[in-house]
Amino acid sequence: MIKPFDDAYFMKKAMDEAHAAYQKGEIPVGVVVVINGKIIARGHNLTETLHDVTAHAEMQAITAAANFLGGKYLKGCTMYVTLEPCQMCAGALYWSQLSQLVYAANDLQRGFRTMGVQLHPKTKVKSGIMEREASDLLKRFFVEKRNLN
Amino acid sequence: MIKPFDDAYFMKKAMDEAHAAYQKGEIPVGVVVVINGKIIARGHNLTETLHDVTAHAEMQAITAAANFLGGKYLKGCTMYVTLEPCQMCAGALYWSQLSQLVYAANDLQRGFRTMGVQLHPKTKVKSGIMEREASDLLKRFFVEKRNLN
Repeated sequence: MIKPFDDAYFMKKAMDEAHAAYQKGEIPVGVVVVINGKIIARGHNLTETLHDVTAHAEMQAITAAANFLGGKYLKGCTMYVTLEPCQMCAGALYWSQLSQLVYAANDLQRGFRTMGVQLHPKTKVKSGIMEREASDLLKRFFVEKRNLN
Repeated sequence: MIKPFDDAYFMKKAMDEAHAAYQKGEIPVGVVVVINGKIIARGHNLTETLHDVTAHAEMQAITAAANFLGGKYLKGCTMYVTLEPCQMCAGALYWSQLSQLVYAANDLQRGFRTMGVQLHPKTKVKSGIMEREASDLLKRFFVEKRNLN
């Protein structure tokens, strides 16, 4: 059972964003940013749509959350993202001083852990929430993409 | 003597951007992106103005250059930047497949080399062009900031 306001609840909202990316032919990654139990930013990968490698879900959500808060630091915020952030996004999260990062699927090839990127020392990290759903959607995307080419 | 179209020429243009950031009270970092001897994007740090940790000079210039080129990869492009890129910007450059990165001053604390971030294997790196000017401007900014507080 999904209870409101637990990690599974918010990761489900991030998964909704990942599905929105999938519908657009984007690598399906979605994100929400939460403070005090409220979603203040959401986003999904738009790198193909915008022809912009910086348009990862997390980057957009960092900008949107800071805009909502009126300041550049995401202290007190938790980011829920369906895939382990890459070097760029983890580097942005470092600067944001995010309080907590929760991600679903690991990215053993390009994830920040494999690449050795550092988050801010104040950022707590949790992973594995809805890992199966997130990674199944990514796999489906890449299988379908291969079959189209 | 500065000859048109050499590294010093383009780094001087990046330094002009760094000065524009300085005038706005921003950490003075500037950038230009060049293809076939032509500047196709320029930018300077705007993190304070925009309340956005992602608004580094390089990130804006990657987006602008891709927009100019109509595609997300910066193949054939050289980026001139007055300070060694951070984790986030180096991570973005990794995705962009930039052909050449030229930076002026080292950032021994937060630069991508210290932090262990990887650029794309195809990206060539040069450093030290106008290092003194770039690092003098950064030092002046931080000294003045300390004196104001």
